[in-house]
Amino acid sequence: RVGLALAAAAALALALAAWRRRRPPVREVLFFPSRPSCTEALLAEAAGLGTTARPCPCPLPQGDSSLSRLLRHLLSARRSLEICLFAFSSPQLGRAVQLLHRRGVRVRVVTDAQYMGLPGSQIGLLRQAGIQVRHDQESGYMHHKFAVVDRRMLITGSLNWTTQAIQNNRENVLVVEDAEYVKPFLDEFERIWEEYNPIKYRFF
Amino acid sequence: RVGLALAAAAALALALAAWRRRRPPVREVLFFPSRPSCTEALLAEAAGLGTTARPCPCPLPQGDSSLSRLLRHLLSARRSLEICLFAFSSPQLGRAVQLLHRRGVRVRVVTDAQYMGLPGSQIGLLRQAGIQVRHDQESGYMHHKFAVVDRRMLITGSLNWTTQAIQNNRENVLVVEDAEYVKPFLDEFERIWEEYNPIKYRFF
Repeated sequence: RVGLALAAAAALALALAAWRRRRPPVREVLFFPSRPSCTEALLAEAAGLGTTARPCPCPLPQGDSSLSRLLRHLLSARRSLEICLFAFSSPQLGRAVQLLHRRGVRVRVVTDAQYMGLPGSQIGLLRQAGIQVRHDQESGYMHHKFAVVDRRMLITGSLNWTTQAIQNNRENVLVVEDAEYVKPFLDEFERIWEEYNPIKYRFF
Repeated sequence: RVGLALAAAAALALALAAWRRRRPPVREVLFFPSRPSCTEALLAEAAGLGTTARPCPCPLPQGDSSLSRLLRHLLSARRSLEICLFAFSSPQLGRAVQLLHRRGVRVRVVTDAQYMGLPGSQIGLLRQAGIQVRHDQESGYMHHKFAVVDRRMLITGSLNWTTQAIQNNRENVLVVEDAEYVKPFLDEFERIWEEYNPIKYRFF
């Protein structure tokens, strides 16, 4: 009986410790334009190339910016990444997504048919890298701008992932881990993903 | 002493009842395109014209839709409304904003200089109605799409307030009362509002 009581107490202590270690949910708001900053070290670190191996020779300041915060959240993916984007042409964000794909993260991309072929679009490069991409066939725009990391973290706002938007526009991005917000976006992604299944494409 | 104890107990009971009545914070996600629905009854009711006085003869279905939910949240404003919108051409949302202004709500609008003069824009009508509007003078876009109701409720997402977006696009809108999200957006509004003060306009 004493053994049983001790075991129960130990289990309780462990559970309590785990509960205490629990990270509070991320709740962050990022505004753009992002201040200029070099993101090479961040991408090199994520690629496992080490941070100090080859310092970037560019003149951009190091340190945090809205873009680097966005990259960091994206690069925290370990298992899955759903992306639903009207326009995607930022080379840094494109590299981050490719890097996650190479790392074994299951990446799925939904985008807008009218915008995916524009000059500078990352969509072709992502497809070349073997990442699954689906697009609409509608007259309306697929105008969402969100991503879901590990089915846990929602990244959403007004920002298209383009250099123009990141560097020049007034934009916002919410980074959210509240399940009440994440779940509907995941459901919306799955709905659109199925609706845009290539077996349903019509060829005119 | 018994009186004091009774008074304390009564105060406690009242506080408990108020705490129980406390409405949980709104946390809603709306997706678009909105299903078609008639919003005339909603706008007539908000204008104090009564709901059943003159039923709308249009063939659109009654009942809830993403647009009617958005309108309802907007029309809940009692004191202030900050709007920060890239494009604003929806007649229903324009009428709602004018109605709030007439009701004495302090309405302030920030918008994008390149888009505010396009055909169908509501911005001219809002100005004619006496609502304060400010705009950027930058080469980048003022691409935000958010509103704050009574400094308490944030409405934000990918949706521009245009009929095209409401009826045809894939869009999202978050309706949020968590202070951690509302506060940064209010601060961003005040920053932009000051920056776009007409005394700073340059005339080329």
